[in-house]
Amino acid sequence: MNVEVLAQRAHQGAKQTQAMDGEARRRALTAVADALDEHRREIITANRNDLERSTAEGVAQPLLKRLRFDDAKIDQAIRGVRTVAAIPDIVGDTQLARELDDGLVLYRKSAPIGVLAMVFESRPDALVQIASLAIKSGNALMLKGGSEAMESNRILADTIEGASVAAGLPDGWMALLETRSQITELLSQDAYVDLIIPRGSNSFVRHVMDNTTIPVLGHADGICHVYIDRDADPEMARRIAVDSKTQYVAVCNAAETLLVDSAVADTLLPSLAAALSDARVELRGCERTRALVPGITAATEEDWSAEYLDMILAVRVVDGLEDAIEHINRYGSAHTDAIVTGSTERANRFLRGVDSASVMWNASTRFADGFRYGLGAEVGISTAKIHARGPVGVEGLLSFKWELHGNGQVVADYTGAGGRSFTHRDL
Amino acid sequence: MNVEVLAQRAHQGAKQTQAMDGEARRRALTAVADALDEHRREIITANRNDLERSTAEGVAQPLLKRLRFDDAKIDQAIRGVRTVAAIPDIVGDTQLARELDDGLVLYRKSAPIGVLAMVFESRPDALVQIASLAIKSGNALMLKGGSEAMESNRILADTIEGASVAAGLPDGWMALLETRSQITELLSQDAYVDLIIPRGSNSFVRHVMDNTTIPVLGHADGICHVYIDRDADPEMARRIAVDSKTQYVAVCNAAETLLVDSAVADTLLPSLAAALSDARVELRGCERTRALVPGITAATEEDWSAEYLDMILAVRVVDGLEDAIEHINRYGSAHTDAIVTGSTERANRFLRGVDSASVMWNASTRFADGFRYGLGAEVGISTAKIHARGPVGVEGLLSFKWELHGNGQVVADYTGAGGRSFTHRDL
Repeated sequence: MNVEVLAQRAHQGAKQTQAMDGEARRRALTAVADALDEHRREIITANRNDLERSTAEGVAQPLLKRLRFDDAKIDQAIRGVRTVAAIPDIVGDTQLARELDDGLVLYRKSAPIGVLAMVFESRPDALVQIASLAIKSGNALMLKGGSEAMESNRILADTIEGASVAAGLPDGWMALLETRSQITELLSQDAYVDLIIPRGSNSFVRHVMDNTTIPVLGHADGICHVYIDRDADPEMARRIAVDSKTQYVAVCNAAETLLVDSAVADTLLPSLAAALSDARVELRGCERTRALVPGITAATEEDWSAEYLDMILAVRVVDGLEDAIEHINRYGSAHTDAIVTGSTERANRFLRGVDSASVMWNASTRFADGFRYGLGAEVGISTAKIHARGPVGVEGLLSFKWELHGNGQVVADYTGAGGRSFTHRDL
Repeated sequence: MNVEVLAQRAHQGAKQTQAMDGEARRRALTAVADALDEHRREIITANRNDLERSTAEGVAQPLLKRLRFDDAKIDQAIRGVRTVAAIPDIVGDTQLARELDDGLVLYRKSAPIGVLAMVFESRPDALVQIASLAIKSGNALMLKGGSEAMESNRILADTIEGASVAAGLPDGWMALLETRSQITELLSQDAYVDLIIPRGSNSFVRHVMDNTTIPVLGHADGICHVYIDRDADPEMARRIAVDSKTQYVAVCNAAETLLVDSAVADTLLPSLAAALSDARVELRGCERTRALVPGITAATEEDWSAEYLDMILAVRVVDGLEDAIEHINRYGSAHTDAIVTGSTERANRFLRGVDSASVMWNASTRFADGFRYGLGAEVGISTAKIHARGPVGVEGLLSFKWELHGNGQVVADYTGAGGRSFTHRDL
């Protein structure tokens, strides 16, 4: 079937999944968990085929590692599905109840978005996770995985679709796309697809964002900053700079630039640089940094907007707080930025002035993460300001609808002189 | 200046407006209200010029009526600005506070979106309203009004910009575009513009939606339904059908199709049709409707997706609740749909099954409106499911940001065996 037909079927399916109750969704999730257990051997065989083919094709080691889906990974995935099944139903939660008049009550209730489309890379567990979150949130789902995981994704999608449809979900609620050219078609399905969640390289995410009118949940770059203020505790500054840069360098919330207040650069920067060098970080500094830390590479204009995802850190001396805020708003990617300072007043100026999804005061940028924020499963991190911003949990898969319950009220009764007036009393 | 430069300036301005405090915003709004009062004579003169030119150009009467901006309208606009100034500051409200660990607290706080762009038609009061809401919500603003209101819009924008900048808002926070060709350029400013709010004809809104990757807050069609269920009270059915269709026909939340349960069509439809005909509504019926209400026009397939915005109503007999839900989800525009029934169980099936922004039970579709919902000023009605859905108040102009306050915590402390664990306790 072509992508448009699949999208249309998913759209139809979404009309039915959104009307199902929480108990039906729970049953479907349990059936999925059971089916994954039953089809364990076929899944492992399919995954072995993917691993062999990808190894022969020379796929890089880190990718091969993420591709592996063995007994332990299946156990973990099944546990994940059962955990999602067990959490309370989140669809239809009342977010607001307001009396408009006697006997006329307005509710705002959470509701599914409709059709989600996720494009992801080699990790087959991502497929199981997003499918279980889609079922839980009452959404239909279109998926496109990497070609290296083709057989794994196919058996996983077949297993999940088979079990969930047998448990009552509508035919076509879920669709797996398998060719790269289908992504282009997917991006034009704005009549049927409500939200796209791309996971992959920066350039891929940017390609998706630039080529669809469908809303995109995600982020391209993570150019995160740590700013060491004049009122920073030196030991805290060191710990936060090192953790933000080195705790896990390959991720979007790792720091890429260190900014140091000129008022304390003389006293702090040499020891900060030494600590970072001890942690094997290569520094690229501005002129003032190089005057204080001899021997390091000179930073160029490109370094201020580089996302290294590696043991490299750009370092710049700035003339105080306002200069730091301006640098971050200009060169950053509005993802996550931290200030280290003992001053509440200066911290608040930073937290307010930096226009990023997450702003940290005396804490590492690496905390910007759905699990650490207590959001449950993380759907992604968004640098958009519309709908969801920063780490996004399962609420990011929900919209809402307005329900008005009356007993025959008409608007004509509320107009003109002598018309009834609204009470607008929140309940 | 070209549109890109203006958008870039607004983007820069937004970095400053978002960091201002509520008191500064209030002062700016008061200055704007005072300035509108001071420039009253120039505004009226400019508006007279617009009216004369537009009359000479043969602009239609309803448009001319909306274009008029006289002393009474200015008074009303100034009162509106002062009302917005007086409401409590909405930027930086804490939406969530969560302890992640001892001394590590996460906040989610409301924050401005950035740069809003509004494209609107002749009504100059719309300019004053959106400008005051933009100031209140800390956003920058780009505006494009209709050419018939060119002089009015120019003096209003100059007055508002002058007063607000003198009161502390950054230069360039607000920009007025004046030519039609600039709209195309505006739609491509996704690097600088965060949200587009189009107000105008359906085809214009759809054109905007189809031609930008920037999120759009709005709706194209309003194809609203009233479904009369087998358990409906006949008198209530009559009142709600008549109000939904006739209370104000030219608006998006007016009903365009009446669906009647076949179980009660024999008994209810003739009197419903008589009441609607008495209210001067032209009916277009399906075959079963015409068998019960002789002499009315036959509805064609196009009638089920027509937005008449006129005294015309399509009428169809459906085979019960599920058939009604299917018809609405298929032909409707996901705007506002109502059921009339005495059955709670059947109402809930409808409210859950109909995938629309507003769903009404025993109340007129005409209630779907920001003022009636108690949202304060209405920014628009959205049929998108992302960010804002249904009637949108000033919260629709806000995003949020995450703030993490620590005392030196690093992620390395929370990893591996013996690492600290998160408490995730909502405060």
